[in-house]
Amino acid sequence: MTPQRPDVGNPSRSSRLSPEWIVGFIDGEGCFHIGISKHTDLRFGYQVLPELTVVQHQRDLDLLYELRSTMNCGVVRRNHGDRFCWRVRNLKNLTELIIPFFDKYPLKSKKSLEFIRFRKVVMMMQEGRHLSKEGFAEIAKIASEMNRAQPRTTADSRESPSQDENSGN
Amino acid sequence: MTPQRPDVGNPSRSSRLSPEWIVGFIDGEGCFHIGISKHTDLRFGYQVLPELTVVQHQRDLDLLYELRSTMNCGVVRRNHGDRFCWRVRNLKNLTELIIPFFDKYPLKSKKSLEFIRFRKVVMMMQEGRHLSKEGFAEIAKIASEMNRAQPRTTADSRESPSQDENSGN
Repeated sequence: MTPQRPDVGNPSRSSRLSPEWIVGFIDGEGCFHIGISKHTDLRFGYQVLPELTVVQHQRDLDLLYELRSTMNCGVVRRNHGDRFCWRVRNLKNLTELIIPFFDKYPLKSKKSLEFIRFRKVVMMMQEGRHLSKEGFAEIAKIASEMNRAQPRTTADSRESPSQDENSGN
Repeated sequence: MTPQRPDVGNPSRSSRLSPEWIVGFIDGEGCFHIGISKHTDLRFGYQVLPELTVVQHQRDLDLLYELRSTMNCGVVRRNHGDRFCWRVRNLKNLTELIIPFFDKYPLKSKKSLEFIRFRKVVMMMQEGRHLSKEGFAEIAKIASEMNRAQPRTTADSRESPSQDENSGN
């Protein structure tokens, strides 16, 4: 069963979360991150893992579920202790839902610069360029610039996307 | 010269910041806080200091100025190091601009519960109830509940509102 993907530019009318609200919230709380972790059975020995995450205290768990439901992708997981996160790692969801959304509704903070880098890496991965030596080196450079600008505060990145996010979700 | 106050429900068309974006950003980054600090020359020896603050890295200083300009109140100050804040302390601005704004455009996170307490304290102060023993005790109780739920991460609270915010601003 493949659920129909809504146009993310028009979240369902029943949602409390408007596109503008989501942009404001992500400008504040969102983190666009490119993880590069050791993975000995992969080419070059490393895995590239782009993700959008929002971490909240447990009291706002419902809001994370609303984000997931409005954006129609991602998973909600415990981050650590009483912190939970909404996280999107699946490349198809990033390409078809997350990136078009922020193209249509641009971020207003300097996080927009992180998004531009994030967008570039995701597009390169979609074209398979992370599998070439030159492409991987370029991604690693972009990632190091992003991660320097914005320290990591999100969930453990050792899980693979397929373990925690349904591709049809 | 008294600048005309705009209807905060209708931010100027030239602003990049829509009400919905502002609500999303405040849901993420805003802090409604009731400071109670020692002040030996005041009644009961304490000063009640409600404030809304948003702290950002220096790279988003422009965004703080846009918040100030769109909401038509508050000041932008260095918080500490490379962190800056937009801060509204002036009672008239809280009563006439901030509270009506969030009454019209409700917060969607559990920060709305902080806002309800904050609103109550500001309204009590407007009625002068912080000057009675019973009123002050009630405010102190509400403040202790708020500040327990949400640790303080904002600027130094020792300044008085008149020092850092023009009443006509």
